Amino acid sequence: MDERIREHAEVLVDWSARIESGDDVVMAVSGGAHELAVATAELLGERGANLVATYSSGEVQRAYLRGHDDEFDADPAHELALFENADAYLALGGGHNTSATADVPGERRRAHARATEEIREVRLATDWVKTVHPTRSLAQQAGMAYEEYQDFVYDAVLRDWESLADEMEQLKRIFDDGSEVRLVTEDADLTMSIEDRTAVNSAASVAYDSHNLPSGEVFTAPYATEGEVLFDVPMTIRGKRVNDVRLTFEDGEVVDFAAGQNESVIADVLETDDGARRLGELGVGMNRGIDRFTDNILFDEKMGDTVHLALGRAYDANLPEGESGNDSAVHVDLITTVGEDSRLEVDGEVVQRNGRFRWEDGFEE
Amino acid sequence: MDERIREHAEVLVDWSARIESGDDVVMAVSGGAHELAVATAELLGERGANLVATYSSGEVQRAYLRGHDDEFDADPAHELALFENADAYLALGGGHNTSATADVPGERRRAHARATEEIREVRLATDWVKTVHPTRSLAQQAGMAYEEYQDFVYDAVLRDWESLADEMEQLKRIFDDGSEVRLVTEDADLTMSIEDRTAVNSAASVAYDSHNLPSGEVFTAPYATEGEVLFDVPMTIRGKRVNDVRLTFEDGEVVDFAAGQNESVIADVLETDDGARRLGELGVGMNRGIDRFTDNILFDEKMGDTVHLALGRAYDANLPEGESGNDSAVHVDLITTVGEDSRLEVDGEVVQRNGRFRWEDGFEE
Repeated sequence: MDERIREHAEVLVDWSARIESGDDVVMAVSGGAHELAVATAELLGERGANLVATYSSGEVQRAYLRGHDDEFDADPAHELALFENADAYLALGGGHNTSATADVPGERRRAHARATEEIREVRLATDWVKTVHPTRSLAQQAGMAYEEYQDFVYDAVLRDWESLADEMEQLKRIFDDGSEVRLVTEDADLTMSIEDRTAVNSAASVAYDSHNLPSGEVFTAPYATEGEVLFDVPMTIRGKRVNDVRLTFEDGEVVDFAAGQNESVIADVLETDDGARRLGELGVGMNRGIDRFTDNILFDEKMGDTVHLALGRAYDANLPEGESGNDSAVHVDLITTVGEDSRLEVDGEVVQRNGRFRWEDGFEE
Repeated sequence: MDERIREHAEVLVDWSARIESGDDVVMAVSGGAHELAVATAELLGERGANLVATYSSGEVQRAYLRGHDDEFDADPAHELALFENADAYLALGGGHNTSATADVPGERRRAHARATEEIREVRLATDWVKTVHPTRSLAQQAGMAYEEYQDFVYDAVLRDWESLADEMEQLKRIFDDGSEVRLVTEDADLTMSIEDRTAVNSAASVAYDSHNLPSGEVFTAPYATEGEVLFDVPMTIRGKRVNDVRLTFEDGEVVDFAAGQNESVIADVLETDDGARRLGELGVGMNRGIDRFTDNILFDEKMGDTVHLALGRAYDANLPEGESGNDSAVHVDLITTVGEDSRLEVDGEVVQRNGRFRWEDGFEE
């Protein structure tokens, strides 16, 4: 076994999920994630945790959903009980075909999601972590050779997370103390309020309210957005390739938009509900182990020298206790690079310029 | 997909497990059983059942057990809750290596089995069915080519179960009404009491108290065994090849034994406890879809023209309500063919002679 698979499992079990002796763990194994499952199971045994492995196969899920009609039982008791009694949920992604469920009707999928909402909430109340094992299918989606893609994934996952967490803490504090963020690039000049919002130092660990491995971003929930922004990173949204999305905001709402390709996808997103026209997230990518875009949001939005904004739902972790933020059925991330001729300001002070943070060598005041 | 995989799933879901709308089903998928899992999931969807798929990989299990020490938590809450709330449990066997857990220390394995005894009991209280998907690994164990083995498995599984159940009912009635069974072959003359015992018509369906697919045997719990028997079918017991096992019974207990190979394995079995020296089962194989021995008890003991006897634990289903039968930590099946020059008598009446039952063409009184 590639030694990096064992290292990946160690980061997952110890740094990310903080598994301890006696923890009841559900490990969901995607069709192509067998080797990571083996390495993770061994560590779970070493830590004295209790393991239930579930089979998270896209093809099994497709067959079940296509066989079923649109009427699903609400929150089946056996699945609900499994997660109600679980301390942690480790989702090991990585299948053999990223389009494995492509021919499941959208309405079927949504009906199932609605019927199992309580299960999802109970699962998200555990110490859950989502990661991926590098498969040939994901390499193909990224347009990369298999071994090249393995290197890419492990560069992103096998970081010195403790020191990255310390670095990200600096940006979190600036956001927490600040009132207004301004993003300026060659094709953007956008201001957002972040007053009274709490930033999350997303350091790939449940100890940081962070549930993705890799992670490496600081995010908050902006509002009262004004100005224009161009997202220069191409993405697949709802199965369609979208690029050069341009949004214009007034009074916190999108009032104009355009896209270089599949503009109708953006129109569909914006028409979902009122909240879909407002931002739910401002995130700053700080994982310099990620050196390219691979059309996989788990990686893309964490890449160093990028900023992403999401239309739609805000995360509770960013809001004052008991307050609710922007509400929407969607949360669609869009990404812009922040390299040459760009800057991020908080209350008029430059925090990042031309891809260098204030505390880094090469930062120009 | 091979159409026989879908037919296998249909027998499993409809005939064997009797799945109905609203049933909460746990489907355990072995490493090589993906295709059967897909076909089964589609049918579970069609029937309106609720599915949790678990990953029953020998390699994951090995890694977990080897990582762990010998101290396991008793019946972890999440796994217990899953099965307490399940109506049915479908175990889809078929891995990539029948020796996948060969280097797990026996004591580790036993410690884990002891710690999870309640989970096992709760699981066996559901409508559980065990079957196998034909894999290359199982073909290899059987000494057969892959396609040849697929034909073998589907011949055994895709029977007219309803009509086989009707036929087996005749033998069940004879056993239920009878007091004494006598088995005579060239190398056996054995009598057993079956007075007050109830035979099970094991027709591969929970509706018949039968939990194996394929099945096709009638079995009961004999006692007061007297005489001698030679088991001419070779088997692997505790990882060792055993053949030509000869047992001599007096007053229901083994008083002498021999074997053509690895006799010490039989000695070990007999020394387990008192119950290991008495019989727990007499079974008559009646599945004529099984035409050869493949060193897999799921198939071997159901083959037509065979009789098997098990040393050790008796099944409750064979006993009067509330009564307990022979008790032991083991249940080890041994098989003899009953072709030429053999007969099975109940209370002096011949039921099967030279491989023909009383109700079959070619039976000689």
